[in-house]
Amino acid sequence: MKEKKYRDREGKFLVEGLLLCEELVASATYRKLIESLVFSPTEASSERARKLIADWTARGLTVKEIDAVGLKRLSDTVTPQGLIAVVRKAAVDFGDLLAAAPYCLLILDGVTDPGNLGTILRTANWFGADAVLLSANSVEWTNPKVVRSSMGAVFHIPVVSGLPLAETLSELANRGYSLFAAEAGGDTPFMAATFGKKNALIFGGETSGISQEVSPFVTTKLRIPGQGKCDSLNVAVAAGIILSEVFRRKSTS
Amino acid sequence: MKEKKYRDREGKFLVEGLLLCEELVASATYRKLIESLVFSPTEASSERARKLIADWTARGLTVKEIDAVGLKRLSDTVTPQGLIAVVRKAAVDFGDLLAAAPYCLLILDGVTDPGNLGTILRTANWFGADAVLLSANSVEWTNPKVVRSSMGAVFHIPVVSGLPLAETLSELANRGYSLFAAEAGGDTPFMAATFGKKNALIFGGETSGISQEVSPFVTTKLRIPGQGKCDSLNVAVAAGIILSEVFRRKSTS
Repeated sequence: MKEKKYRDREGKFLVEGLLLCEELVASATYRKLIESLVFSPTEASSERARKLIADWTARGLTVKEIDAVGLKRLSDTVTPQGLIAVVRKAAVDFGDLLAAAPYCLLILDGVTDPGNLGTILRTANWFGADAVLLSANSVEWTNPKVVRSSMGAVFHIPVVSGLPLAETLSELANRGYSLFAAEAGGDTPFMAATFGKKNALIFGGETSGISQEVSPFVTTKLRIPGQGKCDSLNVAVAAGIILSEVFRRKSTS
Repeated sequence: MKEKKYRDREGKFLVEGLLLCEELVASATYRKLIESLVFSPTEASSERARKLIADWTARGLTVKEIDAVGLKRLSDTVTPQGLIAVVRKAAVDFGDLLAAAPYCLLILDGVTDPGNLGTILRTANWFGADAVLLSANSVEWTNPKVVRSSMGAVFHIPVVSGLPLAETLSELANRGYSLFAAEAGGDTPFMAATFGKKNALIFGGETSGISQEVSPFVTTKLRIPGQGKCDSLNVAVAAGIILSEVFRRKSTS
């Protein structure tokens, strides 16, 4: 399950380490999707780890002890933290999601770096974005590096993956969404943009930017004014700056 | 020179790949600090790479051809890009820097993740921050991962490292700087803060936060309002949001 094809086939993924396992239980959705836990007693020896193991056992979950070598084989990291949970992917119904007329959707068009996607999920959850939609050519959100760099935010925000972007954007436009895209050459400084009651924010890939398929649907191209010598901002930083603005407007409107 | 101790002893570091080597030449400071270039003709075979090699040779720099195996030994990456430059570290005089009464200094108090530091340098350069000051326990800025994730911004913004933080902050306060620190529990929402003509923005480490040594000097503790379930934002995202605000105020003041 360290490999994408197994995660896809099984509809499950691995969650590694104490902090992330604690976040699983803190999530109303994922608390119910935990399948099992494996732990190595030599590594998961802290009081917090022992408490979690006892708690999960008491919940009737499958909890298995393995040795450090077995754990290392399952682990994605060089220094495993002694605990790995197997969880089912949450099923998000896109129709239900839209029916609630969410204020802010994030759409990622070819974001391929796992660290960037994890950081974007963390940021989106921080500000209270309603969901993150991923194009088929974005990195898979159950990738262990994504889960890790999201710091568990991935358990707290709905993620919809593999969407056909053109159809999705057309649907959003029909439902009254304004479609904003962040582009280095955008004509509207983000602080001068008008955000409405339904906002979709589109971010392109690290080197590819917004794809040709997406471009025709964009209502407003947002620029983050800068003066440096370099070309652009990191996509997670750009998403943070624009999300911060969108939610600042919400709180003052 | 892949190791810190050699970089420190020699006062030099490695810059790998075509894009970063091009950024070196685009930097008024670093253009003069290039020592040599090694390249593997089988890998550095694009027209852009050949142009750079010819250009550097014409400048009278030491340009050496090596084979792919030799290059791989020097390289920090799994798939080397065929070009590695050796450059001297730029010497930044902290006194000269302060004499120019810079509008915005960034101070990093124990930022240890190379990707985060690189992204912060890229962001600081984008907005036009005047310099980045690093505590002794922050990751070294000539680390190859820092250089890479800065996307070359490290050649365009002065970096001062190894500063004794307490003395530095005391000096900045004496010179009329307001000292802002980003903290999850800060009492001032960043958008309500008053920025002056001299601003120092302090960011703590990914898990450690602002250190005890720094805390007494802080004038204002800034919070980035959020509503998510998770504890905090990534430090590079937090720096981006606050830098964006500081430079937005500058442009409208």
